[in-house]
Parts: sequence; structure tokens; C-alpha cells
Amino acid sequence: MTEFQRPRGTRDFGPEEMAKRRFVEARLRSTAELFGFGEVMTPMFEDTALFVERSGEGIVNEMYAFKDKGDRDISLRPELTAPVMRFYVNELQNRAKPVKVFYFGNVFRYERPQSGRYREFFQFGAELIGAPSMESDAEVIALALWSLESIGLKDTVVRIGNLDILKGLLGKIGVEGDDQAACRRLIDKADFEALGRTLDGLGVAKAEQERLMSIIGLKGGAEALDKARELAGSDISGMDYLGGILERLAVYGFKNCTVDFSVARGLDYYTGMVFEIDAPCLGAEKQICGGGAYSLAELFGGEPVNSTGYAFGFDRIMLAMESSGIQIPIPGLQAYIIPIGEKARAEALDILRTLRSAGIQSDMDLMGRNISKALAYANSAGAEKAIIIGEKEIAEASVTVRDMKSGEQSKYPISDLLRGFLKGVI
Amino acid sequence: MTEFQRPRGTRDFGPEEMAKRRFVEARLRSTAELFGFGEVMTPMFEDTALFVERSGEGIVNEMYAFKDKGDRDISLRPELTAPVMRFYVNELQNRAKPVKVFYFGNVFRYERPQSGRYREFFQFGAELIGAPSMESDAEVIALALWSLESIGLKDTVVRIGNLDILKGLLGKIGVEGDDQAACRRLIDKADFEALGRTLDGLGVAKAEQERLMSIIGLKGGAEALDKARELAGSDISGMDYLGGILERLAVYGFKNCTVDFSVARGLDYYTGMVFEIDAPCLGAEKQICGGGAYSLAELFGGEPVNSTGYAFGFDRIMLAMESSGIQIPIPGLQAYIIPIGEKARAEALDILRTLRSAGIQSDMDLMGRNISKALAYANSAGAEKAIIIGEKEIAEASVTVRDMKSGEQSKYPISDLLRGFLKGVI
Repeated sequence: MTEFQRPRGTRDFGPEEMAKRRFVEARLRSTAELFGFGEVMTPMFEDTALFVERSGEGIVNEMYAFKDKGDRDISLRPELTAPVMRFYVNELQNRAKPVKVFYFGNVFRYERPQSGRYREFFQFGAELIGAPSMESDAEVIALALWSLESIGLKDTVVRIGNLDILKGLLGKIGVEGDDQAACRRLIDKADFEALGRTLDGLGVAKAEQERLMSIIGLKGGAEALDKARELAGSDISGMDYLGGILERLAVYGFKNCTVDFSVARGLDYYTGMVFEIDAPCLGAEKQICGGGAYSLAELFGGEPVNSTGYAFGFDRIMLAMESSGIQIPIPGLQAYIIPIGEKARAEALDILRTLRSAGIQSDMDLMGRNISKALAYANSAGAEKAIIIGEKEIAEASVTVRDMKSGEQSKYPISDLLRGFLKGVI
Repeated sequence: MTEFQRPRGTRDFGPEEMAKRRFVEARLRSTAELFGFGEVMTPMFEDTALFVERSGEGIVNEMYAFKDKGDRDISLRPELTAPVMRFYVNELQNRAKPVKVFYFGNVFRYERPQSGRYREFFQFGAELIGAPSMESDAEVIALALWSLESIGLKDTVVRIGNLDILKGLLGKIGVEGDDQAACRRLIDKADFEALGRTLDGLGVAKAEQERLMSIIGLKGGAEALDKARELAGSDISGMDYLGGILERLAVYGFKNCTVDFSVARGLDYYTGMVFEIDAPCLGAEKQICGGGAYSLAELFGGEPVNSTGYAFGFDRIMLAMESSGIQIPIPGLQAYIIPIGEKARAEALDILRTLRSAGIQSDMDLMGRNISKALAYANSAGAEKAIIIGEKEIAEASVTVRDMKSGEQSKYPISDLLRGFLKGVI
């Protein structure tokens, strides 16, 4: 007799919200398929060590990590790139390259729940495995942008960086190895104060620091790239690569992509191009997508293989669509049948079967309610038409059709009802 | 550098299998929507006590039960009726009745993995909450049967029972309370030997036992019901109810439903009508659906409400479709573009964009492969057409289109390519 609550940081989704989420999911899926990506699905949990291998020991504190009854350390998945690459190493390695896959699923982080952050949330992502080229990097970014277009989400900002450039800039001022990794993580967090202190500690001259900061601060199209070339000097590689990606994205129809040298992604397995997409309408938590080129299979015992991928924060995409006022169509009941009196119920059921057989979403009163209560239900269920059938109607082999919006009523012969629906005149 | 394996008893699904599963899921979803059911989704885990409340203490040994970092007892969900009813009690109770919901999701059982049984598996189910009537029981069974029709699964057997009848029969021979519950569980397991021993122990006369067994053994349509009426006597209620359900199912178009008085369902919260559906092609593990009328909300602190629901074993449905030879269409690449030489690559990307913009699933070589290797890839990717573009073609503003099945090749002006695809002549 306890009242149970759902676990903290999780959500239940009702019918209206689920209809919207499934609509968006279907659009993202068909766009991925349009690009020749195929869906994969992996288990809800994996060996804890798999995630540690990808993300470092710290991840254990953020996961639902537990021992199963066989004393194995398992964790609810906190992200899907590691499981997908584990699957790739186990079973997809021998397929012709590139292997193009996408996924949609829930992931879990054990962190303090706060506004817009949940312990169970959803990611939609794609991985292009085994085609190490500028073209495949562009293909992956193009898929992300095309996907957002397919759901009507405009005014997003894609920022593309290149770790080769960041590594080159840091190397040029003598910052290498672990120090360089630490600096990249600070840049990823946009913690420029701490970055300054670290560079001071490493003895990097102020003028060098300023030059680095001004390159990192550049954001824009081809002109930002030109400016960066000028500031960085011709010995920094990766500028042409970034330029090539921008050119290709323009052929895909995406002409407003920006470069951003501060995009660093936090994890060590990223190898070159990195990118993030923001939906500025979301304010502080505006990032809806992150990805880049990486090399991960070898950590899981596979042959090294260059890959490019990304993940959308599906819940943030839903929020961004809502805050942009994008209307998602929710298909509702087309007909709600109201039999009046016992004799009408068999006839009503027959009409119900006929309408459903033709693919018309319909339902009937199962409660034996009177007409006004049944109409109230039809209204709350969002039905377009109520179909009323009583003894008088049965005698005339007709029904009364009520438009639930206008309240207009008219009679139809039962034999014409289905045709009326199919022709859209009812 | 470890090679990781997926956890025991779980599965990875590759692109071909996922395409099939999504196809079936979509059909089941649209059928539920056709019937006016709306989708809900609940978290992957719940308070362990929620499942114990529904299924008894024994369930703990079969669950992935663990403590989270806040020392709360949580469990990966072993089924979805309890979470859905928990959600109903928390948030949907005040909606107009009936509340018609469906769900699709993975569930978890910690049991020894064996052929066709997994630790993570999938259920698709529906619950009609708050309409306690013969008509709503029939509506729910009809949805299950209509769903199976929608995926082409014929030759299934639906067996419908009624716990009122079983309770009446057992009560009539003096078996009540816990003894009755124990007997119902043995009937549910079809363990008639143990049932006989138990009835012996309770001092039930052999003749009474035989009469019970012969009623339980009856299976068939209206004629089996008549026979049962004759054997059981007129004081056993529930026969007319079962007959009414059969009549209504016939109006829905399902004329071959059978009654089976041995359908008992294992759990105490079932209240009246119960049913199971088998796919005989699956052999010993043939049950693909189970459900019935139940009362569960009050166990979770809600107002008592009569409900009827069922769950499909989604994985068994997939197996049944496969073993019935049902072909599920897997949409593949319509076009694979092969640029020969650097100059052709920009042109190829432009064609790719054009085709995709028109919704044509297409891809292009990202590896710079020669033509025979690229054709081999197109073949392994299941592409319908290869579109080859080299310097000669560029000079002529044309492409070579190769039918991947027949091997036939012909030239098309680039300007006619899209139209050719849209008209279906390419």
C-alpha cells in the first residue's frame, strides 16, 4: 500500500510527450538511413572496465556501477561510443569499410539531478568507422546538420576545430605530453584563467600565451581560418584540412559552418577534427551535439581503425525544439464512436472494426456512458469526430457525425461512412 | 588492450537485424495507435520493492537488484506492468477513463542463459485501465490479435480462460484460500501430477478431481464452452462472460478463438479473464503473449481500478516470424556513387547531395578506391545502383549507371539522373 515514486533523476513519459519524441526519433533515424548508416543496438550494461578503458578511472564515480550475482563488475552504460566500438571489434571488424552505424538509446549518469540534467537520458549518435579522410569527417558533420534540418531546428551553430592545430600550437611553445593534455582539457572547459596559470607555471612567455589565446578566441568562417593561419605561422598543420572540410560542407549545402580552435573535447582518444553544435536558445546548457575523429578500437583489443562520430543529446534537442516553438504533429483519434443503448453496441463495434480495417484511428465508448459524458471523453481524447449511434439511427441505418471542433452535426448512412472518411469529406 | 565481450545473456544487434526489429516494432506501434492506445515510457530501473509488491519476494532472486550510491535498493525492471501502473498511480489517475496505454522496452531477468532466453529481452505490451467490462476485455484481446495480423503472423492460437470459473470449480470441491492459490499455480504450470497429489492431500474425492481435470482439459470454441457448462453445472459463474467475449471477438473478425480453462496465469493480481497466445511453430517455448484482467493500482497506493493488459515477448515474435518464413523488407541503399579520379569527387558529392535531398538513400565512396573494389563495396552494402563518374563522364556531363543485380550499364546525363530515380526508370 506504499505509494511508490520513480527513482530520483529519472522520468516517466506520457502519451503526448512520447508521440513527440518518437516523431523526432523517426526523423533522425530516416536521415541516418538516407546517408547509408545502419542502426545497431547494444546491451543496457557492460563490463565496468570497458568504460574505464575509454574514459579513465574517474568515470566509475559517475556511473551506476554494481556487481551482478556472478560477482562481475558491470555498469549501466554512461555513453554509447564504447559499447558500439566493442561490438565493432567483436563482430563487425571484418565487414567492408567504411562501417557506417547509428544508435539511439538511453544512457545513465549517477550525478546530482538538476534542471535539464537527468540520471537517465537519451543519446542519438552515429559512427563512421574505417574511412580516415577529410571527406568522411565532412560526411559525419553533414549528417549531424542534415538531421537537425530534418526536425526543423534552425539557428544552430556548428563549431569545428582540429586537435592537430591545438597540439601544434601548444607544442610550438614547448607544452608537450601530460602538460599538453592538461592544457587541452582546460581549453575544453573554457577555463582560461586556469590555463593561464598552468602556462605561467610551465614558463611560457606572456606574449606566446596571448598569441595562443587570440587564436583560440577566433570564431568564424574562412576569414577566421585565414586570420589563424597568419597568427599561427605556416608550420602549424591542420589548417588546410579544416579548410577542406568547410569547402565540402558548403557542397552539402551547409555554408555557415564556423571554425573554433578552442573545441578540444575532453578525452584522449580524439585524433584530429572535433566539432560541437549549439542551440543558442537553450542558454547556458546550449550544447546539443559533440563529436570528432577518434581511434578507440585498439583499446578494446581490436585493430586500430580511424573513426569519426558524434552523439546528440536527444533530450536537449527536444528542449531546443520546444523553446524554438516548433510544432510537432501528434496524430490523434479520428473517430470516437458513441453507442446509445444496448442494441447499438454491436452495431458500433462493427463500425469500429470497419474504420480500423481502413487504417482510421478510432475508438468507442467502453463504459456505457450517456451521450454528454461520452462526448466529454471524446473531447479529452482529442477525437476529431464523434459518431453517435442510437436506436433511431439504427432504424434508419445511419449515424450522427459530430465535428468535435465546430460542434456541427450531420447524419450519414452507415454504408457511406467509411467512404466519407477516406475521401476526407467527413 | 583487453578484448571485451558483451555481458553474458545479452545481445548486440547489427544493422540487418535492427532494421527487421524496427519494422515489426513500427507495425505493432501503429496498430496500438489505430486502437486509440498511446505510448508511455518509464525508467530502466525502479525501487526493488515495487516489483516485490507485484510479484512476491521470490522475484528478487531473478532480478538485477543492486544498491545505488545513495544506498537505495533498485532493480532493473523485470517486466513493465508494475512500472506502468506506478506511473498511472503517480500521474495518470485523474485522466478520463479508460486510460489506454502501450509500451515497448527492454526488461531484465537474472537467470541462466539458455537457447532463446536472454537476460535482457524485449516486451511490447498494452494496458487498458479503468473500463471493467466484457467489451474492454475483448478490445484488449482484439488488439493483440490484430497486432499479430499486422506483422503477418498467422497460425497463432489464442486461448482464453476465466479465473472466476477456475475459482468456482475449486471452491465447489472445497479448495479455498492459499490452497486454491497453490492449485491455480500448478494449473498454470500444467503440472497436473502435482495438482493431483495436492488435491489428494486435501481429501478431494477422485471423481471430483476427474471432473475438474476434464473441464480443465477442454479446449475449443463455443462447443467446448457448452461442454464445460454441462460438466461444471449451472452454479459456476463466468461461462456467459467468456461466451460474450468470444461473440465480440467474432465481430472484430476473430472467429477462431478458443477457450481454455487451464489458463491460470501465475500471479495473484489477476481478477477474471486471462489469455495466452501461442505460436506453435516455436515448439516448446511457444507462448508469445500473456495477459488478462487485473487489479494492481491499490498495491502501489492508488485507487483500485480494474484493468486489462498483456505483454508480447518481442524476441519470440521475431523468432516466430523467422521460422514462419515471413520476409521483412529491409530498405537498402538505392545509389552508391563511385568517383574515379580526384576531379570527379566534387561532382560526385554534388550528385550525392541532390539525390539525398530528394529522399533517395545514397552513399559515395569515401576511400578513393578503384572501380572494382568500389563495386565490391556497393555490392556488399546491398546498393541497387552504382553511379560511376570519371573524367570522361564529367566532360560529357553524364554518369554511368550500373544495375548491381543484372550488371547492365547505361549512360545518363547528370541533369536527368534525379528525374530517372524519381520516376523509377533508373
